[in-house]
Amino acid sequence: MKKTAVVLLSGGLDSTTCLFWALKKGYAPIALSVRYGQRHGRELRAARAAAKKAGAILHEVSFSLPWLGGSSLLNRRLKLPETPLSKIGRGGIPSTYVPGRNTIFLSLATSLADSVGAEAIVIGANALDYSGYPDCRPPFLKAFAEVARRGTKRGSEKKPIKVLAPLLRLDKKGVVRLAQKVGAPLSLTWSCYAGGSRPCGRCDSCQLRAKGFREAGVVDPA
Amino acid sequence: MKKTAVVLLSGGLDSTTCLFWALKKGYAPIALSVRYGQRHGRELRAARAAAKKAGAILHEVSFSLPWLGGSSLLNRRLKLPETPLSKIGRGGIPSTYVPGRNTIFLSLATSLADSVGAEAIVIGANALDYSGYPDCRPPFLKAFAEVARRGTKRGSEKKPIKVLAPLLRLDKKGVVRLAQKVGAPLSLTWSCYAGGSRPCGRCDSCQLRAKGFREAGVVDPA
Repeated sequence: MKKTAVVLLSGGLDSTTCLFWALKKGYAPIALSVRYGQRHGRELRAARAAAKKAGAILHEVSFSLPWLGGSSLLNRRLKLPETPLSKIGRGGIPSTYVPGRNTIFLSLATSLADSVGAEAIVIGANALDYSGYPDCRPPFLKAFAEVARRGTKRGSEKKPIKVLAPLLRLDKKGVVRLAQKVGAPLSLTWSCYAGGSRPCGRCDSCQLRAKGFREAGVVDPA
Repeated sequence: MKKTAVVLLSGGLDSTTCLFWALKKGYAPIALSVRYGQRHGRELRAARAAAKKAGAILHEVSFSLPWLGGSSLLNRRLKLPETPLSKIGRGGIPSTYVPGRNTIFLSLATSLADSVGAEAIVIGANALDYSGYPDCRPPFLKAFAEVARRGTKRGSEKKPIKVLAPLLRLDKKGVVRLAQKVGAPLSLTWSCYAGGSRPCGRCDSCQLRAKGFREAGVVDPA
């Protein structure tokens, strides 16, 4: 029997690459998409298409967190940042930070992994481009791995629930190259924060994506 | 200004005691109730009454986790256990275990705490009566405290987000005594897993509660 991995899948470039990376690594992936009041559902449609392409079951969880009005990813009245994350400087946290986001994502993935007996959780966290987000940094992921080990039935039976972040040390160029290597369907992915019918090209996620493709010498098919 | 604490509040004896403990300790409490497909909403009505009594804001978050069919707390077709948790024996995990439950609860509380600038999260985890649940044990709570520190804006600014479990070393008798000491409104609390108009008296939560009151020499007002 194949080992199973829960893959957090937003439908963006990073998480879609993770999904196909997991396939390539020999895991039977189970995808998990979390809707927490994002500005748009475009990303989630992309997630469904990617999961289908990978032949993975997709679980979707929706909720809204009434206290999350302060993030520009969720609040349409706040302006989306156009300064690249990488220029915000060490220690600065951009307005797109959603407090506790990856902690919540990983906790839901842990619940799913413990329920179905998955031996790994895969998250597209990226310590370079997203250095502004505390919940994308290696010490956070390491701390969460201990939570997954200590707080689960699997962990108490000494079975692994690994927390894998295959993009952790990659910049966007590296992600584009990995995506190509593992056969991720880049044309299906969606990165824009704004969520119109086409990517806005201006938000920092669009800029980061464009830069990644440019530097990797790859034409963006999306 | 008073320091703020996010208190996870189910409406049961343990969490209601935590809420009034936090008040007594000088915190301005913000209560957080999580509805994740429990068998009944009776507990949540109790949570609202307790929050009102404490003068605390109550945030409610609802979602359903499609993979949680295996817990008898959520699946009405499974029989609720009548064997006290304490008799299941070391290492055994009861059917009321909801995979990842406290991890999810704490991650939501972390998001709220990081959003409002709370310096503590309070959870009614109890290492004695609930020794069967991996996510009630001290090593889990310690690991989660590291996650809250590493994964948040507050943490990266070196401000505390403490994870407090004031009931951790108490048995049910101890909880009843603490509840009296901090003035928790026991008559408003609800412990029964079954959720009829009156407690069933048979499920292990009812049995544990009855034993606690008996041993504390207190008449249960609920």
